[in-house]
Amino acid sequence: MSNQPETSTPDETNGVTPAAPTDRARIRRLPDRGRYDRATLDAILDEALVCHMGFAVDGTPFVIPTAHWRVGDRLYVHGSPASRALRSLGAGAEVCVTITLVDGLVMARSAFHHSINYRSAVIYGRATPVVETEGKRAALHRFVEHIAPGRAASSRPPTDDELRQTAVLWIPITEFSCKVRTGGPIDDEEDYALPHWAGVIPVAVTASAPIDDERLTPGIERPDYAREYHRPTGGE
Amino acid sequence: MSNQPETSTPDETNGVTPAAPTDRARIRRLPDRGRYDRATLDAILDEALVCHMGFAVDGTPFVIPTAHWRVGDRLYVHGSPASRALRSLGAGAEVCVTITLVDGLVMARSAFHHSINYRSAVIYGRATPVVETEGKRAALHRFVEHIAPGRAASSRPPTDDELRQTAVLWIPITEFSCKVRTGGPIDDEEDYALPHWAGVIPVAVTASAPIDDERLTPGIERPDYAREYHRPTGGE
Repeated sequence: MSNQPETSTPDETNGVTPAAPTDRARIRRLPDRGRYDRATLDAILDEALVCHMGFAVDGTPFVIPTAHWRVGDRLYVHGSPASRALRSLGAGAEVCVTITLVDGLVMARSAFHHSINYRSAVIYGRATPVVETEGKRAALHRFVEHIAPGRAASSRPPTDDELRQTAVLWIPITEFSCKVRTGGPIDDEEDYALPHWAGVIPVAVTASAPIDDERLTPGIERPDYAREYHRPTGGE
Repeated sequence: MSNQPETSTPDETNGVTPAAPTDRARIRRLPDRGRYDRATLDAILDEALVCHMGFAVDGTPFVIPTAHWRVGDRLYVHGSPASRALRSLGAGAEVCVTITLVDGLVMARSAFHHSINYRSAVIYGRATPVVETEGKRAALHRFVEHIAPGRAASSRPPTDDELRQTAVLWIPITEFSCKVRTGGPIDDEEDYALPHWAGVIPVAVTASAPIDDERLTPGIERPDYAREYHRPTGGE
């Protein structure tokens, strides 16, 4: 239920704790969980496979899941030039991009103090379309590498026509906040004597054995990045 | 890159394929991936640990991750009565709740035809707060059971005061759509002869060994739902 101001002190190691860049990006609930440093943000962006993009059309909110990737200070997304989401973003709509990693289920002795260990990031801004072909080519190369390092070199690169069929946009990584919960349950003192198990069940996105395409040419072996697939982990 | 109208035919077994309930819920991009049946929706809602709630405040979009659970035809969320998101929703703001499960990374021979197998759901509506204590108690019982079946009976139930400190809201499951991609890569015919591995890397949220709370009373054993934790799977 997790709405108590317990736990989780930020551990900024350089002595400098960045503050919220803007008021809307400031963490209000459980501000001790708020983090505003790029190391925390980048680890979340680089580990996650999908983000959720929110935008409003005539006041109606839409939230669209899509793959994302980061290049330096830019968060990239892509899709069909015909997609409603990308057209709205390309037209300058304000966007809120949220990325969430669930790291563990926190089981307290009381139902009320159950919680979830997570790392989430929210980026606010407006998107800029990449228009030139070479910019798209470079960005999409990084996308393939974000999904599976090594894959770009072992697949056919996009043609100019394929690049024309792909919309690519980026959002500046300037106005953002992260929220992080780590550690075990925090029960009320009188509940520690209860006879209930308490602890954390760690969870993560994991891969299982690759499935060869049914038309795979005989003799082509599974590459290492497929056989031993894993996301980079920034979890604590 | 995944923006080609390939693959994935809906397999409605009763011969009836539900249509989109409203225009805004209709899948426009890759409509073959659209599904509007409750079985598909419920499997996504019941498996996922978190949703992303989108709402607009003065035209600015916000997307907040939170745990959710389903009871019949209602999607529930909870949190602090002081939270910006729950206050906006409780005041009648339109909300778009999106839930996404990533099932696999689809590696085609061409970078362009790389894709992701996923199941996503979008629910549009307005939230209703649960005001009476007994209604909250019943709903939150279901929440604990959604996270870990069996846990409600082996933790201390919430007190009336804890229930007062918890806001609970529900959104009717009426206006929704799902989008599903399954199966292997679909390459351009001339690319099948390329010497690149192609296939699917299945991914899923999995649990590892539970971590006992450091103040766990000696002799209390880990319950089965913690030792063998897994989400219900509706993946294909």
